[in-house]
Amino acid sequence: MKVWLNGALVAAADARIDPADRGFTLGDGLFETIRVAGGRPCHLERHLARLAEGAATLGIPLPHSTAEIAAGLGRLLEGNGLAEGSIRLTLTRGAGPRGLLPPAAPSPTLLATAAPAAPSPPPARAVIASVTRRNEHSPLSRLKSLNYLDNILARREAADRGADEALMLNTQGRLAEATVGNVFVMLDGALITPPVSEGALPGIARGLVIERLQVLERPVTVEELHRTAEIVITNSLAVRGVASLEGKPLIIGSPLMTVLEATKR
Amino acid sequence: MKVWLNGALVAAADARIDPADRGFTLGDGLFETIRVAGGRPCHLERHLARLAEGAATLGIPLPHSTAEIAAGLGRLLEGNGLAEGSIRLTLTRGAGPRGLLPPAAPSPTLLATAAPAAPSPPPARAVIASVTRRNEHSPLSRLKSLNYLDNILARREAADRGADEALMLNTQGRLAEATVGNVFVMLDGALITPPVSEGALPGIARGLVIERLQVLERPVTVEELHRTAEIVITNSLAVRGVASLEGKPLIIGSPLMTVLEATKR
Repeated sequence: MKVWLNGALVAAADARIDPADRGFTLGDGLFETIRVAGGRPCHLERHLARLAEGAATLGIPLPHSTAEIAAGLGRLLEGNGLAEGSIRLTLTRGAGPRGLLPPAAPSPTLLATAAPAAPSPPPARAVIASVTRRNEHSPLSRLKSLNYLDNILARREAADRGADEALMLNTQGRLAEATVGNVFVMLDGALITPPVSEGALPGIARGLVIERLQVLERPVTVEELHRTAEIVITNSLAVRGVASLEGKPLIIGSPLMTVLEATKR
Repeated sequence: MKVWLNGALVAAADARIDPADRGFTLGDGLFETIRVAGGRPCHLERHLARLAEGAATLGIPLPHSTAEIAAGLGRLLEGNGLAEGSIRLTLTRGAGPRGLLPPAAPSPTLLATAAPAAPSPPPARAVIASVTRRNEHSPLSRLKSLNYLDNILARREAADRGADEALMLNTQGRLAEATVGNVFVMLDGALITPPVSEGALPGIARGLVIERLQVLERPVTVEELHRTAEIVITNSLAVRGVASLEGKPLIIGSPLMTVLEATKR
């Protein structure tokens, strides 16, 4: 495989991240996961807009224009002969000296890697993570940052409990999101998802669903999670039904198909 | 400079972190900052014990024994001719495929870098960070993990407000720690520091102070922060007095010197 690193297409085995890169030392960066279909990145403008917004929040200058990045991703797909799959685009603040204060003139790292399409995962056996909580008090809950350890802890808990996905609660004990996607639940005939103020990442697929379907954005309690009959998890690569929550079987029905359609348009 | 990477001493310019390293892609790792004095790492056993404990929490196998790591750090100091300064030891889960679930048989990355001693920083002009909160509901608040973006946001806020350090509150709005150290305050004649359950990292220097001095571990409110006349920040490299909080001058007096002595023994 080839990767696109700081403007050049290089063999993955030759690509070098500096051990002093703040992405590596402090998680000081952001990423996007972009679906590739028919040889093209899907919803690229939305992904690049979110990346630019996050970079502005963190104060990381984007080292390339949107057009340059789009061209680079095109070269990446071409160089790997990839038509169906995904791209991961990672932006970090680049190398820096010791300490937290960013260098005055950072030299950011921009890396894009590509992966072939994975088979659609089966409906998820989900649990509610108890090991940790998402911090809705931090702006990071609204950024796709490199600080993914809370989600990793929750994903490991799911595996330990014989499940494949975990729903994460915020510090108030209400639903925030899943470890790798946003969560939609059917309650009393309405499709509901927590607002980003509850600790949900503003997912690209989530945004598409909200624009295209009747969705109610409001807090969701654990009691409601246990009461809902249908749960759907969305991210940029897949829409996934939930087969069971904490061992209790759920329905995988029309909301899933409707949400799926909404993200495909 | 030379670095010690996965058991070998190599020139920093030749040291390569794999772009697929989960430390880089997901912040999936831990680190220790260790003071070096007289050519030896200080309190190394405590640092390695904390690293091992954190690695167990995250499920990252330590690729070397404590004795091997100690020997490697010795070679690092020797190779760089460094007698006074600091070592940063970074452990990550190593390279992995896409997704959050760790590989069943990870190949962790262990990197040690050395830096010469920096001059003692002057007493800090501190603010109380408003941009974000530490998440005491997450076990990460008690681990020195690579997820440092909340602290970076707070440190940037301090700089934006003309200060050099920020005190961070937890989600309840009480004192947790500073961006690069634990906080001790003098209140009504007692030396007080928040317990780790408040979102304070169990710092090595903090532990030494608690063992060697009369310290009360209890929650500290913002009202109390504004009322205290003396604040001291500790980490493994320095004990730093606070010259002002939100612009209000503080005393830099005997508690600072006492804490300083306690960490030096």
